[in-house]
Amino acid sequence: MLTYSLADKGADSLYLYLYKCIKNDIVKGVLPSGKKLPSKRSFAKNLGVSNITVENAYALLQSEGYIYSLPKRGFFVSDITFPAPTKFASFSAPVPQREGDSPRKEKVTAPTFFADFVNNHTTPESFPFSIWAKLLREIISQKSNELMIPPPCGGIYELRSAICSHLKQFRGMEITPEQVIVGAGTDYLYSLLILLLGRDKIYAVENPGYTKIEKVYHSHGVDCRFINMDSSGILVEELTRKDADIVHISPSHHYPTGIVTPVSRRYELLSWAAARPSRYIIEDDYDSEFRFAACPMPTLQSIDTMERVIYINTFTKSLSSTIRISYMVLPPRLLARFYQELSFYSGTVSNFEQYTLAKFIRDGYFEKHINRMRNHYRTIRDDLLAQIAKSPLAGCSTITEESAGLHFILRLDTEKSDQELVNNGKKNRLNLSCLSQYYHRTSPEMPDHSSMHSLVMNYSGICRQKIKEAVQRLCKSVLTTS
Amino acid sequence: MLTYSLADKGADSLYLYLYKCIKNDIVKGVLPSGKKLPSKRSFAKNLGVSNITVENAYALLQSEGYIYSLPKRGFFVSDITFPAPTKFASFSAPVPQREGDSPRKEKVTAPTFFADFVNNHTTPESFPFSIWAKLLREIISQKSNELMIPPPCGGIYELRSAICSHLKQFRGMEITPEQVIVGAGTDYLYSLLILLLGRDKIYAVENPGYTKIEKVYHSHGVDCRFINMDSSGILVEELTRKDADIVHISPSHHYPTGIVTPVSRRYELLSWAAARPSRYIIEDDYDSEFRFAACPMPTLQSIDTMERVIYINTFTKSLSSTIRISYMVLPPRLLARFYQELSFYSGTVSNFEQYTLAKFIRDGYFEKHINRMRNHYRTIRDDLLAQIAKSPLAGCSTITEESAGLHFILRLDTEKSDQELVNNGKKNRLNLSCLSQYYHRTSPEMPDHSSMHSLVMNYSGICRQKIKEAVQRLCKSVLTTS
Repeated sequence: MLTYSLADKGADSLYLYLYKCIKNDIVKGVLPSGKKLPSKRSFAKNLGVSNITVENAYALLQSEGYIYSLPKRGFFVSDITFPAPTKFASFSAPVPQREGDSPRKEKVTAPTFFADFVNNHTTPESFPFSIWAKLLREIISQKSNELMIPPPCGGIYELRSAICSHLKQFRGMEITPEQVIVGAGTDYLYSLLILLLGRDKIYAVENPGYTKIEKVYHSHGVDCRFINMDSSGILVEELTRKDADIVHISPSHHYPTGIVTPVSRRYELLSWAAARPSRYIIEDDYDSEFRFAACPMPTLQSIDTMERVIYINTFTKSLSSTIRISYMVLPPRLLARFYQELSFYSGTVSNFEQYTLAKFIRDGYFEKHINRMRNHYRTIRDDLLAQIAKSPLAGCSTITEESAGLHFILRLDTEKSDQELVNNGKKNRLNLSCLSQYYHRTSPEMPDHSSMHSLVMNYSGICRQKIKEAVQRLCKSVLTTS
Repeated sequence: MLTYSLADKGADSLYLYLYKCIKNDIVKGVLPSGKKLPSKRSFAKNLGVSNITVENAYALLQSEGYIYSLPKRGFFVSDITFPAPTKFASFSAPVPQREGDSPRKEKVTAPTFFADFVNNHTTPESFPFSIWAKLLREIISQKSNELMIPPPCGGIYELRSAICSHLKQFRGMEITPEQVIVGAGTDYLYSLLILLLGRDKIYAVENPGYTKIEKVYHSHGVDCRFINMDSSGILVEELTRKDADIVHISPSHHYPTGIVTPVSRRYELLSWAAARPSRYIIEDDYDSEFRFAACPMPTLQSIDTMERVIYINTFTKSLSSTIRISYMVLPPRLLARFYQELSFYSGTVSNFEQYTLAKFIRDGYFEKHINRMRNHYRTIRDDLLAQIAKSPLAGCSTITEESAGLHFILRLDTEKSDQELVNNGKKNRLNLSCLSQYYHRTSPEMPDHSSMHSLVMNYSGICRQKIKEAVQRLCKSVLTTS
């Protein structure tokens, strides 16, 4: 078994020294990619330390992406030439985000996939750095007074007002700035909504769905139930049957299936919400800017006359995931409660970025950026589809939802399990995810989705020059027999 | 009774139209400052609308600072030439933060106090705009790749590492970057800690104390108990008796009393924490940078060998409250749980500001800024104390805690109630708060602190040129018989 002498640990705590020893061996290649590490218990026994010491060392290594865990199988060494995914839970064996390095050690080169079909990163070429820098400079020189005034909990007036105009122009929504609440990312806003709507409520999420939403509800310890979907979206009958109060949906473009909820189901949902005073719909409109269809479906919010819809959207998709600005639109009936109970919370977005973004929208740069990005993503998608059509995959796959924007579904005619597909991808330095990973199986009677053979192809972070080779690697991952 | 014709409401919803009517009358002076508004119920009856319509209109007006409420007395028109406080709950009649204006109306001039002794704002002269702008520019031109990589939940490595060096140098703390978790403000970190430590735990806060902390716990619906203090800090015996698991304290400089917990009480606290596995101490070191004493007491964290202390600090005090960056230092024993259960949460601070702040600290600008600000605050304090010494207040007041930094206590020999003092301050365009406002009276048997006649004088936001007149206004507020 792997062993280290802990006598030389010096001033370090045991767990930290152990972490450094293992990391060092991974970086030097002594522990190769894929190597299984000893179980925590036996490793602890062997080293003569407590289980918690090994647990802490493994947790740190995992948080930095050096190792990953497989349920019921244990811990394995990551391929550190790969990047860690940063959005969307990957399979049951996620390589978590890379955390801070140890202070006294050289930093490891950030691992990189050849192509990442899981995370929707913004590439540096896509971000309007020069305009952003110019606007920031103007804000700093012209608004030094305003920059020092703490913003109200909901955000600065200029930004909320700019968001109103944007939503009116692009989504036909008629709202007032006081309905707009700005926050540092949608995770933060989800948490705030739990405090607003009540921890005693029953929350419901889509199955399949964006797994992180359920994680947020789970971490808050609220009752969160999975609701199945048909081809029109979430099943209203099941919502009623499962006693849900609050339902969290993405009716304009469901992730990952791409389902667009038709108007009849929308009215059914609104009618469900209106039937009891505790019911609300959270409408997550996360990538509405990038739909390629000529005329996107109006929002649920805009046809809601009973004030039961809370609209959420984010600039982390449309601008950059590293600028942490999201917003929600509260219905008027919730405003009194919000301002009375939660407005004591300080705002979470820096004034510098709030003013810069407000100007970016107001001066028309956001619209230009969206148009440019929509064209850019369309080109990427077209290239990718063309390469797949020319490849051996053409004969053994079907593509759906290719017009939804930012991702499509590639259904494969293969014997391989979904886990095998993802693992093969990893070997070929592709980050892949399967539709089945977004399903939550609540009971053994439920259908098993573990072999749907459908890849969710998020293409927004793919560099155009790499598409040809990425498809070759994809063919290898799908077609090579192991 | 006040009445409006709602026939002309046009496309507005009822509540919005009513809000606009009332606001218009306040702005035009038809409804003067201090005027009592009709009760919600009678107003609704009179207008023939539902109670919720009036409630929503009042909530909006209150959120924008146009009106304020007094418990059991009702709603009153604010003096809109005054600013709204933005930090620290003011008396039982707070003027809430100013929210966004109505979109189609001209914006009201932001109301301003002559001098604000409640809120610790940064004045624009104090913020190092040119250096900040220069560093931001460098970051944008040199780090375009890094800026687009989503940061891990705990923050970018460079910032966490810079914070480690800072804490080592200024507070003698030996920690590693992975222990540092960066977040968008302390409110956010408090919320994250509730998720980490458990909603089933019993939380305890200081009485008196910074009222916002209890509000955060309250909004999360966790059991939060008030613990009394003696001259050495929080009472450990009461912590035990009240079954607390987690205690939230500021031992280095209690707000607002300024108490510094001596080393014996510190060990008593650590011993309390070590006695049960569920116990932790949250050490809020909120303004440690600005203590004028030659050698500030070491942190609890640095003498904690049992890993029971969570250290929290913020750049919102030391840099600007509008740059939303705070951090906490987790003990190693909590790291595994944090990374396993909560690292799926996206970071809340933009990469642009994380990299800029990291460089600001690393290149020595933060240290220079702190030194400059410490001198600046010392000058403000000395001037203010000198003016008070020369004024009629000298004969009827005692000053304590004048070396604590950023505030002192002015105890007055007066017949006036604390509420009267605050109200008189308002009439003289001073924002004042009393020590009694920071006490929570949990039962009628508890001592009534409502007439302590002690003002908490936060002076960091006071402009030097205004000190003389501010003290004259203070004399008027305290000495004039009404």
